[in-house]
Amino acid sequence: MRIALDAMGTDTAPSAEVAGAIDALRDVTSQDVEIILVGDEEVVRAELARHDDVPRGIRVHHAPDRVSAEDSPASVIRRKPDSSIVVGLKLHKDGDADGFVSAGPTGAVMASSLFTLRPLPGVDRPPVGTLLPTAGDLSLLLDAGANIGCKPSNLVQFAHLGSTYMRDAMGRENPRVGLLNIGEEPGKGDEVTMETFELLKVDAGLNFIGNIEGRDIVRGDCDVIVCDGFVGNILLKFYESVAGYIVDLLKAELDTVEDSNVDLEHVFRVLDYAEYGGAPLLGLGGVSIICHGGSPPKAIRNALIVAARAIRSGLVKHSAEELLT
Amino acid sequence: MRIALDAMGTDTAPSAEVAGAIDALRDVTSQDVEIILVGDEEVVRAELARHDDVPRGIRVHHAPDRVSAEDSPASVIRRKPDSSIVVGLKLHKDGDADGFVSAGPTGAVMASSLFTLRPLPGVDRPPVGTLLPTAGDLSLLLDAGANIGCKPSNLVQFAHLGSTYMRDAMGRENPRVGLLNIGEEPGKGDEVTMETFELLKVDAGLNFIGNIEGRDIVRGDCDVIVCDGFVGNILLKFYESVAGYIVDLLKAELDTVEDSNVDLEHVFRVLDYAEYGGAPLLGLGGVSIICHGGSPPKAIRNALIVAARAIRSGLVKHSAEELLT
Repeated sequence: MRIALDAMGTDTAPSAEVAGAIDALRDVTSQDVEIILVGDEEVVRAELARHDDVPRGIRVHHAPDRVSAEDSPASVIRRKPDSSIVVGLKLHKDGDADGFVSAGPTGAVMASSLFTLRPLPGVDRPPVGTLLPTAGDLSLLLDAGANIGCKPSNLVQFAHLGSTYMRDAMGRENPRVGLLNIGEEPGKGDEVTMETFELLKVDAGLNFIGNIEGRDIVRGDCDVIVCDGFVGNILLKFYESVAGYIVDLLKAELDTVEDSNVDLEHVFRVLDYAEYGGAPLLGLGGVSIICHGGSPPKAIRNALIVAARAIRSGLVKHSAEELLT
Repeated sequence: MRIALDAMGTDTAPSAEVAGAIDALRDVTSQDVEIILVGDEEVVRAELARHDDVPRGIRVHHAPDRVSAEDSPASVIRRKPDSSIVVGLKLHKDGDADGFVSAGPTGAVMASSLFTLRPLPGVDRPPVGTLLPTAGDLSLLLDAGANIGCKPSNLVQFAHLGSTYMRDAMGRENPRVGLLNIGEEPGKGDEVTMETFELLKVDAGLNFIGNIEGRDIVRGDCDVIVCDGFVGNILLKFYESVAGYIVDLLKAELDTVEDSNVDLEHVFRVLDYAEYGGAPLLGLGGVSIICHGGSPPKAIRNALIVAARAIRSGLVKHSAEELLT
C-alpha cells in the first residue's frame, strides 16, 4: 500500500511531514506501507538527510510548487498543477498511490480532492468529518464546514458516510448516529432537521439513536454526529479554542502554587487534536485526509495510520456500496 | 423598585429563591429594591421563617399553582392562570412590579412572558440572550434558542437589543457586535448571514466589528454575539457541558496527586454560570429574566441584581427607542 503525503503542507514543512512519515513507518501496523513524500525533491531530501534512521518504505516524488493560504482554493488545480497538493492527488487518482494526506490549506485540499477524486456516484455534497474528544470514545462530527445549507438528503448521506468511516477506519461496530438538534424530542429544530429526523428514523441501514443536544456531545454517546457544515464548523472551532482557554485558566491557577507537581500531560493529551489523525473527506472516489497547518509530527503520523487503515479496510468501496443500498 | 420573583421555579424551590432574595437585598446597590416572592404563601412563609435575618423589602404574593416541566409552554397562560409564573408576570404587566425573574421551565417562562408583556413595537421575534464567560469580559450571545430560522432583519434587531442590554444592564459603553459565522471575511456563510453582514455593516447605530468565528468567542472580543437560535442553543449547551467535562478531567488528574493544595475554586468560578445573572428575554414591554432550574441562591441573587440594574437604567424604554431610530 502506498500513501502520498503532501510534504509541503504544515507551517514547518517539510520537517513535521518527514518526521511524521518516519514515525508512521516504525509503527508495527504499517509494515506493508510505503509513503511517498510529495514536494520539492531537493528540500525534502535535505530534510531526510537530517534523520539517520530513515526506514525503508519512504520515497520522494518531485513537485516543485507549493500552495499557500493566499491561493484561491478553486484555482489551485488550474494555476498550480505542479504543487505538492495537485501532484499528490494525481498520483492517487492514477493508481500510483492508494490514498492522500495533506496539511496544506484546507480549502485548497478540499477543492482539489473533490475535482481530482470526484464524488462517488450518488453523492451530492461530499462532507468533511472531524473526530472530537469526548468522555467516551471519539465521535465523528460531520459536516465540519464543507457544506452550508444542506438538504435532508445530504444529511442522510453524511450519516451513511460517517458510519462507514467509523466502521472501516476506526473499528467501530454498528456505529451510533445522532442528529445534532436543539432538543431531544422528535419535532424539534428547523424544517431541515425535522425532515432529516424522519428520514433517519426509517433508515434500516443506520443505527440512528435520535436527536442529540449540544450538551450530549461530550458524553460520547454517538459514534457519528450529523449536522450542517455551518453549525459543525462553528462548534468545532469553538471546541478547540475553549479547551485551550480552560487549560490556560488552569495553568495560571497551578502557577500560583509553589512546587506543584501536578502533571497536566494527561489532560492535554485527551484534548489534543494531534492525537486523532486528521479530518477525512468522505464520499469521494479515493482517500483524502486533511491535517491542521500547525500539525506536529505526531498528527501527521496518526493521519497516515488512519489513512492506511481506511485503505486496508476498503473504505471507498464500502462507501459506494453503502450509498447504493 | 419592585421585582416579582417566581418563588417556585428552581428544583429546590422555594429554598434557593428565598435565600437568593435575602442575599440580593443585602447588596448595597439594592437598597431601594423590594422583592415580591410569588408562590404558595404558606410554603414561602414557612421557608422565610427558617431565616432569622429576613431584611425589610421582602414581600409574599400568593399564587397557589406551579408550572412543571411537563406543562406545554404555550398552554400555561390558559391552563395555569394561578401559577407563580403567570401571577408574577401579571404583577409586572399591571405595574405592581417593575420586572420579573423566574427559574421555572424555560419554554413556559418564555411563552408566558411573550404573551403577557408583548413584543415592543417593531420587534418581530424577541430573542433570549445568555452571558458567556470568556478570557475577556462576559459576552452576550443571542439568540440562545428562542428563534429558529431567523431572517436577516431579525438578526439585526438582535444586535440592537443586545447592545442596549449590554449598555444598560452590564454597563458597557459602545458595545462591540460580532456576527457568528464560519469565516471572518465578508461573503462567508449562508445567505442569511451574508445578507445580515451587509445590513450590520451600514448600520450607524451599531458598533459592528464584523464576522467572528467559533474560535473567537472565548477571546471575548465582542460584547454581543449575534446568531440564529439554532446554532446559539447548540453552542450554549455545548459550552456548559464541555466546561464541566474539562474540569472533571482535571479533577481526576489532581486526585492522583497526593496532598495537592491546588485550589480550583477560581477556575470553577470563572466557568460558573451561576455568577452571571440569568438569561434575559429582550424586545418585550417589560424586564423578564430566566434562570436555570438548578440555580443555587447565588444565581437567583445575581439575576435579581441584573434585573434591578436593567429596570433602573430604563432598558425597556431604551430598547423601544433603539428600534425606532
